Amino acid sequence: MLTRIDHIGIACFDLDATVDFYRATYGFEVFHSEVNEEQGVREAMLKINGTSDGGASYLQLLEPTREDSAVGKWLAKNGEGVHHIAFGTADVDADSQAVRDKGVRVLYDEPRHGSMGSRITFLHPKDCHGVLTELVTAAAAHGQDPQDH
Amino acid sequence: MLTRIDHIGIACFDLDATVDFYRATYGFEVFHSEVNEEQGVREAMLKINGTSDGGASYLQLLEPTREDSAVGKWLAKNGEGVHHIAFGTADVDADSQAVRDKGVRVLYDEPRHGSMGSRITFLHPKDCHGVLTELVTAAAAHGQDPQDH
Repeated sequence: MLTRIDHIGIACFDLDATVDFYRATYGFEVFHSEVNEEQGVREAMLKINGTSDGGASYLQLLEPTREDSAVGKWLAKNGEGVHHIAFGTADVDADSQAVRDKGVRVLYDEPRHGSMGSRITFLHPKDCHGVLTELVTAAAAHGQDPQDH
Repeated sequence: MLTRIDHIGIACFDLDATVDFYRATYGFEVFHSEVNEEQGVREAMLKINGTSDGGASYLQLLEPTREDSAVGKWLAKNGEGVHHIAFGTADVDADSQAVRDKGVRVLYDEPRHGSMGSRITFLHPKDCHGVLTELVTAAAAHGQDPQDH
């Protein structure tokens, strides 16, 4: 069951400049940053609010680490902007299987490593009215210490 | 001060079909629907979670009521997808003036009528790293009964 907007993923050319924009314009601060080599991104998570399911909502700013990554190719085609949206769930395995059973293409056979030790998968945007959609289970919800990363 | 992700605005060609997709795939239900003639949209708000500032986060599904509306023109160019993101604030007047003072173009001289009796303004996407950004004060936060609409 999807219980929150976990984050909005925003692709940018220059992560540091984009972080500076969000800090200077709105006062948003970086909660966490990391490089995800598998996804080919350098990212910063800006925590915006807590959510009623005990989680939180973030902006996820993404700069590609290589041009041939998914985000790198998307940026070359579209320019900066919203790349994907993510819903939080306590059980990404069950929910990804449930949407697969409904005929929505799930991009990974098994959930992969996401931000802050989370487990994530993506749904095909063409099956979701044009929206690249991520499902995410936070580290705390699947028993992993987010500080292990 | 921006205290929550208020909503993600998603443009679609067929509102009813898109509502059906979100209900059938994830179980999300329509919390509110309305036509905003000024914006040229028919819309449905799907409430996803409560937020730590006492508000909520929604998906806002938008179908243009006329081709020459902002959303209609955007859809013709881009196809379905994420159209804008919105941050909630208790004082859209103060926050829109604050970002204007920082050199970000604000699209309205004064906030206008948004969903559920809210007051909204938009920031120019070219000043926001490609993201059309809305600031919104909910009806309850500016003393208006949302049922008046």
